[in-house]
Amino acid sequence: MRALIMDYPLTTNTILEFGNRTFHHKKVVSILPDGSRHEYSFSDLYTRCNKLANALTKKLGIKKGDMVGTFAWNHYQHLELYYGIPGMGAICHTINIRLSPKDLDYVINHAGDTVIFVDASLVPLLERILPKLGKVINFIVINAPKGFSTTLPNYIDYEDLLADQSSEFPWPDLDENDACGLCYTSGTTGVPKGALYSHRSTYLHALTILGPNAANISNEDTLLLIVPQFHVMAWGAPYMCLMAGANMVMPSSNLTPEGIIKILVEEKVNKANGVPTIWMGVYEALKRNPPKEGLLLEEYHVGGSALPISLIASFEKDFGIKGVHAWGMTETSPLGTLSRLQSKHNSMADEDKLKIRGKQGIEFPGVELRVVKEDGTIAPRDGLTMGEIEVRGAWVIRSYFKSDELDSFTSDGWFKTGDVGTIDPDGYMQITDRKKDLIKSGGEWISSVALENALVSHPKIKEAAVIAIPDKRWVERPLATIVLKTTEDSLTERELVDFLARDFAKYQIPQDYIFIDEVPKTSVGKFDKKELRRRFADGKLH
Amino acid sequence: MRALIMDYPLTTNTILEFGNRTFHHKKVVSILPDGSRHEYSFSDLYTRCNKLANALTKKLGIKKGDMVGTFAWNHYQHLELYYGIPGMGAICHTINIRLSPKDLDYVINHAGDTVIFVDASLVPLLERILPKLGKVINFIVINAPKGFSTTLPNYIDYEDLLADQSSEFPWPDLDENDACGLCYTSGTTGVPKGALYSHRSTYLHALTILGPNAANISNEDTLLLIVPQFHVMAWGAPYMCLMAGANMVMPSSNLTPEGIIKILVEEKVNKANGVPTIWMGVYEALKRNPPKEGLLLEEYHVGGSALPISLIASFEKDFGIKGVHAWGMTETSPLGTLSRLQSKHNSMADEDKLKIRGKQGIEFPGVELRVVKEDGTIAPRDGLTMGEIEVRGAWVIRSYFKSDELDSFTSDGWFKTGDVGTIDPDGYMQITDRKKDLIKSGGEWISSVALENALVSHPKIKEAAVIAIPDKRWVERPLATIVLKTTEDSLTERELVDFLARDFAKYQIPQDYIFIDEVPKTSVGKFDKKELRRRFADGKLH
Repeated sequence: MRALIMDYPLTTNTILEFGNRTFHHKKVVSILPDGSRHEYSFSDLYTRCNKLANALTKKLGIKKGDMVGTFAWNHYQHLELYYGIPGMGAICHTINIRLSPKDLDYVINHAGDTVIFVDASLVPLLERILPKLGKVINFIVINAPKGFSTTLPNYIDYEDLLADQSSEFPWPDLDENDACGLCYTSGTTGVPKGALYSHRSTYLHALTILGPNAANISNEDTLLLIVPQFHVMAWGAPYMCLMAGANMVMPSSNLTPEGIIKILVEEKVNKANGVPTIWMGVYEALKRNPPKEGLLLEEYHVGGSALPISLIASFEKDFGIKGVHAWGMTETSPLGTLSRLQSKHNSMADEDKLKIRGKQGIEFPGVELRVVKEDGTIAPRDGLTMGEIEVRGAWVIRSYFKSDELDSFTSDGWFKTGDVGTIDPDGYMQITDRKKDLIKSGGEWISSVALENALVSHPKIKEAAVIAIPDKRWVERPLATIVLKTTEDSLTERELVDFLARDFAKYQIPQDYIFIDEVPKTSVGKFDKKELRRRFADGKLH
Repeated sequence: MRALIMDYPLTTNTILEFGNRTFHHKKVVSILPDGSRHEYSFSDLYTRCNKLANALTKKLGIKKGDMVGTFAWNHYQHLELYYGIPGMGAICHTINIRLSPKDLDYVINHAGDTVIFVDASLVPLLERILPKLGKVINFIVINAPKGFSTTLPNYIDYEDLLADQSSEFPWPDLDENDACGLCYTSGTTGVPKGALYSHRSTYLHALTILGPNAANISNEDTLLLIVPQFHVMAWGAPYMCLMAGANMVMPSSNLTPEGIIKILVEEKVNKANGVPTIWMGVYEALKRNPPKEGLLLEEYHVGGSALPISLIASFEKDFGIKGVHAWGMTETSPLGTLSRLQSKHNSMADEDKLKIRGKQGIEFPGVELRVVKEDGTIAPRDGLTMGEIEVRGAWVIRSYFKSDELDSFTSDGWFKTGDVGTIDPDGYMQITDRKKDLIKSGGEWISSVALENALVSHPKIKEAAVIAIPDKRWVERPLATIVLKTTEDSLTERELVDFLARDFAKYQIPQDYIFIDEVPKTSVGKFDKKELRRRFADGKLH
């Protein structure tokens, strides 16, 4: 029997309208690429989104279902695009500025962007591939300095675009299952693949992650959005903050550790997000030069790769700031789990608490995880049995955009994450490795992530990445590549083996170590193990 | 363009599965009608819901879309019904035990209940109307004492029903728009009217109200559910708590102020809900006999009728416990607004803060309010312009169950609440009256609720209800009926007029006062103004 409830589609428009109606006084502060500060209210945001939607419709001829690209840092204009584009019925394709020219060309053409909004400082990256962008009709340039010029054709200044538009726009009724945003994976294992989100998935993701067991964001908070808007919809924070009534601080390209600390202090930020690398940098900068006062940061929310327990512990011990670990993927909108301690953990020893906080965390309502063993059976939630993590839920994709790739989806409706891990009896998921990064040595699995976490807790080690190298006897053996904190530091292989022997079985410990200047990174800042393997894994150690 | 997101219906089953998967160790404590204590975990709840669903299907022949009645206090068995009935596809009709025999007969037959689950202690209320219940095939009796007997035909003991059932049940795939629960209004203005909720509306309501700006419920909390499960789905708390991982304490009929305080202390409750009358009683009992230690209550959440500012202030001053005001209706699932202070109010004087906390509060995301003036135009959000509150949203009904009543719905898709009030520039809604309780005197509106709130802040007054009486000169004048705190207290009309003169204009102040022993109440504990008008409003003052 059908219930008798109003039809109320869950769309980004309802979030925008809600933010404007209920939290119109809340602030969006942007530190722009040129270092200048801009501040306006949710109510100003609303007005400008109306102008933008009018411009998209009337000036640029964008229609429902059209693909509109953004190529920009985090700032208020990009926020306007996050609401204005899907609000009028088009799809906001946030293009990762760190993609290679080849992948950039690929995603723009694969998506079918006809208009691209681009930060003036990023224009050269598009100019480089201009011959490939024949289908793009208009480029709209944001934050253009005086005297700006470009070889991009049909370029319009963003402010000129909005200038003469009406501040009232009749937001259309949208189907909540219509597409709202498009993000591509970083393509480390082939061509980038697109995840096409719906209004509904975006709404439910934002509503769920603001909950008290999750990001715990309310109108009391001021959030620094370090996670780029060109990276998986900035983890949904731009939508979450309007729903929660939280002030937003957008740092654009001001992402040096010192730059971040300055913003944290000056803007009275109490929560922030970002990948572990960012927070390692901030921690070290705080150690070097602790701010005298005014650092109100309570929590930093981390995802993208594993947050080392040693960093969680030091950050909290030295500055009283909590690290909160979350996990997700482009394919999961992105957030799927988050790790907070629960009341049941109160009586635990600090060391055990840290182990839980270092896990990827528990499912949000609306997301389901399971561990599938090599033989295809589902592993028990015992915290021990490893297998591939599979996920399903209200904001998980069911296929890739314009793709017939089926390998990542099971016949019973789950997405295969490619992550290998365990789930413990309390539901805490822990990733031990990417499936393709696991090392199988003499028939036993060795986790590269576990070794990396242990190595990076060594006081002399800044970064460590472990890969498999071929071995005649054991088929594969781990190789550890190591970046020391300073050039004065040194470590012998013997010291490293002894250090790891405290936590690992003998067969798990690498015998081979290579000291490098920097671990190569992917476009989203993760260790580029493909590149490491290319350099080192041919069996001839350099 | 359709997005490529998994189809993941929002159903009560996903809440139950989530609670069992992620918070299986959390507790449900029930203080049963006989005073005995029962405790089990979310995992036990899950097992029993499976058994119940099997019994409904196999033993009682319940099919998808069938209507199953519950007539019971708050306890674990009723919680099992909240999940087991909708989970297998039937509809959980929670029957208000305080309805008159006539209305009881009406709602059971109007709903079409074929099975009713009834607390042994409430069986006499059904036996009274047994001749009218010919369509009910089975009565399942919960918490039957030894030697229990009844004239109800085909009665089965609840434990016998579950005893031999399998603890595995294949929960069916449900459409999120299918009906999940049915509640009737109290029928003070005619026959009771049914609100038929969907799985989706129930899920979205629960997910939204647990948010940090709202009820703010997490796995750290232990919630006492005083709001009856037979009253608007217990404000959604049974669903919210599984989603939030909060321990639940169910008091059944142990609702004396002393009984509630005992439970608060013994079960280490930190949050609770209930109507203002309950909290007035608890406050007075705490004053008389403050518990030496162990009262961990931080907040009580109030709805149903206006929470007097004087009570908020005294509760907080004397015991450090916060009152949080919410508003809703059967037609809105029920919660539509909630009043918490925001960071912007930090610098306000305490008196001004109290005024905000005494308002009904701000919209949740997913709910929209507007104030419509007598001339049909929409009032500005100025905190001054009064009109009828209209609401729409993701858990608001679009029509009544089996009814062609259209008067309560506008042609543009809003529900007319019958409440009259204002919305201030910050979005805080304040109800000044029920539309039918407003007093129009000499062309000016007088709010009965405002007068009642003022009167009840007088140290000698326990309850005050104000109604309109006919008046030759002014058309209507307010009449105040007053219950004094003790029989030793006395007040003159002069004293009352002077007391009110501090806050009200002369024309607003009643000249007529009647001292009564108790304000008559409706089946849901609200002032029965219809009855007061019947007694006093014929112009001849008794």
